[in-house]
Amino acid sequence: MLTGGALGAGLSAVLGAGGALGFGAARTATAPVPGAAAAAETEPSLGPGGGLPGFGGESLPCHGPHQAGVITAPAAHVRYAAYRLRPDADAEALRRMFRVLTGDVEGLTSGEAPLADPEPELAARPARLTVTVGVGPELVDRAGAARPGWLAPLPRFDRDRLNGDFDGGDLLLAIEADDPLPISHAARMLERDLASFVEPLWRQRGFRRARGSEGDGTTMRNLMGQVDGTVNPSSSEDGFDGLVWLGREAGWLAGGTALVLRRIRMELDTWDMVDRPGREQTIGRRLSDGAPLTAPPAPPLGDGGERTPADFDAKDARGLSVIPVAAHIRRAHSSDPSERIFRRASNYDDGHEAGLLFACYQRDPLAQFVPIQRRLDEADLLNEWVTHVGSAVFAILPGFRPGETLGAPLFD
Amino acid sequence: MLTGGALGAGLSAVLGAGGALGFGAARTATAPVPGAAAAAETEPSLGPGGGLPGFGGESLPCHGPHQAGVITAPAAHVRYAAYRLRPDADAEALRRMFRVLTGDVEGLTSGEAPLADPEPELAARPARLTVTVGVGPELVDRAGAARPGWLAPLPRFDRDRLNGDFDGGDLLLAIEADDPLPISHAARMLERDLASFVEPLWRQRGFRRARGSEGDGTTMRNLMGQVDGTVNPSSSEDGFDGLVWLGREAGWLAGGTALVLRRIRMELDTWDMVDRPGREQTIGRRLSDGAPLTAPPAPPLGDGGERTPADFDAKDARGLSVIPVAAHIRRAHSSDPSERIFRRASNYDDGHEAGLLFACYQRDPLAQFVPIQRRLDEADLLNEWVTHVGSAVFAILPGFRPGETLGAPLFD
Repeated sequence: MLTGGALGAGLSAVLGAGGALGFGAARTATAPVPGAAAAAETEPSLGPGGGLPGFGGESLPCHGPHQAGVITAPAAHVRYAAYRLRPDADAEALRRMFRVLTGDVEGLTSGEAPLADPEPELAARPARLTVTVGVGPELVDRAGAARPGWLAPLPRFDRDRLNGDFDGGDLLLAIEADDPLPISHAARMLERDLASFVEPLWRQRGFRRARGSEGDGTTMRNLMGQVDGTVNPSSSEDGFDGLVWLGREAGWLAGGTALVLRRIRMELDTWDMVDRPGREQTIGRRLSDGAPLTAPPAPPLGDGGERTPADFDAKDARGLSVIPVAAHIRRAHSSDPSERIFRRASNYDDGHEAGLLFACYQRDPLAQFVPIQRRLDEADLLNEWVTHVGSAVFAILPGFRPGETLGAPLFD
Repeated sequence: MLTGGALGAGLSAVLGAGGALGFGAARTATAPVPGAAAAAETEPSLGPGGGLPGFGGESLPCHGPHQAGVITAPAAHVRYAAYRLRPDADAEALRRMFRVLTGDVEGLTSGEAPLADPEPELAARPARLTVTVGVGPELVDRAGAARPGWLAPLPRFDRDRLNGDFDGGDLLLAIEADDPLPISHAARMLERDLASFVEPLWRQRGFRRARGSEGDGTTMRNLMGQVDGTVNPSSSEDGFDGLVWLGREAGWLAGGTALVLRRIRMELDTWDMVDRPGREQTIGRRLSDGAPLTAPPAPPLGDGGERTPADFDAKDARGLSVIPVAAHIRRAHSSDPSERIFRRASNYDDGHEAGLLFACYQRDPLAQFVPIQRRLDEADLLNEWVTHVGSAVFAILPGFRPGETLGAPLFD
């Protein structure tokens, strides 16, 4: 650790006038205790949130039967980061890594800041920060745990154009918050503390509507202008747990789930060239409010029409399907209620490329995501304007309680 | 423009079953009018903002003596994009370009959406969107206007490490809003409409604290954890106009200003290794609340101490300067009141690199920014952890009134 004294020495070198600085060893001698301890002597702690106005002080509990960040209300910003294990990260190292991770997640999400956090002010207002941790096949193998059959790259889809930049990984951190600052801070703290175990593989950043910009319960729009994510199982509905959360039979993954993260590039320049009826037929929904297409007359706006079930049998006056045969919502729809996924998508815009970070949770991607994507891959009017360029599957670890270590069941 | 009919044909090719589609030419025949006109027949307009809850519907006027986005309260998100003029963009083309730009800025900032906007739903909730337009020397030359002496790359500073990725440009669009979605949409609309005049040169994205995460008037923290931007002239104080806004003597730039945009990379890994007293002495401010360092005892927290003027003469019990000789705030400070700038900084975090997008406005960068930066370049304790890697200067055009064209004075 550099101290004020070391700084003074560096400055002397810069100015070549050490004696005249009024800074350095003498001052350091009056405050020889480094770091936070010294600060604590003279300054009361603001404490997490600081009792200040604004939602920045809000925190979500990281403890529970499941990790936060899966079914908790999506935050405005998300950063996914995947890592590769270092070659020498064996099971014993991984146990240490998860202990470090546990303390960091507890500190960062609560606003108390991890013990070693040099900038606790940046942690004090987490704005509903969540850190959701997933593992890939290599980590499971090194931990000596049983690897579920679905924890592998997805089967190939004909239209996939994976470029290798956003695929797979051994460890995933999905960091969400309603403010980008605590995300940046948390990501840096975590990367610093994990550096001896893993190295960065890829990062992706997504956004939804800013918190407070719309009324509660408004479904986000994606960058194509579509209301996106209307049909999603609710965590309060019967059978939700069976769709998303793994049970006792999953062993170390009981209480966990499976994440599929697809990076879907949008061809917005050519999409812009399609007229509104064409775009509505491509999706099967009205652009204005997301209501499924119906036979005329169109229902009035503003009645929550977005949540009206789509009538896939509806015909127009000429006997033709109102929702086209290859409309996106028809191809995505399954009549098998077990073939559903829990979506948590966000937009991305890297300047040169924009699209959707399509994240979904389920018990078994092979039985849930894959059949849906198989149908879309085969025929979906939307395919002309979307391309899947990244793909990753992670096992999302079960939740943990105070005193427990995240990921501990991997080593049982 | 692709129509529903063209879509149907494309689909036939995909499925090889055109006759069974219930989609295509027949449907198109019942709605032959393409685009927004067709939509308007069946759907009422939601109108800008839609009368829905949330701040998304708020808009800032783009008209006035000065452009918005300079002294209006900074928004949570900003995207700077610079462009090069195409070789054939002559004065006549530039006149057309500014007419296009004017309509787009008016439409996007008001939430009414530009006439040609294919996704008006993405424009309807601008969340205080501003588009601030600046020009570089090449554009001024081609327009046939007089180029101010300061409209050129800044003089070299010894510690500059400009990598060429974020330097200069002929046209600048600074787009701000409290929500990233309208920024993405506006950027895409503008790039599409400007494509025949310019090509992209660079883009940079910044963020401040999310709107609503903190109380009004809270100064943002940068990624080093410092309260950043405390000392800033207020637009309500005497003499502000003389610091920032150009007057009649500036000809086509009367009512405009000069922007300096510096990309300042932070070396956060080594910064983390400095103890808190060392970091506070480097800046000259207390980390906890940004108050200038004082002789003991330290003042209590929470009294707006951040805005206390720094006492650069204060000595400690040993007679040494409390704010070190090369502390950042001492080196940045000028006793000449005309040597001040109006700062509007934001954080950036591209994953592999993080830092500050330091933007400042002034009448004359050579007389205002340069002497300050000269002192910092020469000696600033902070230099060990910050590096200027990008630099650009733009003339920010004067404001415009309804019916006027942004940039028109360039051609007078």
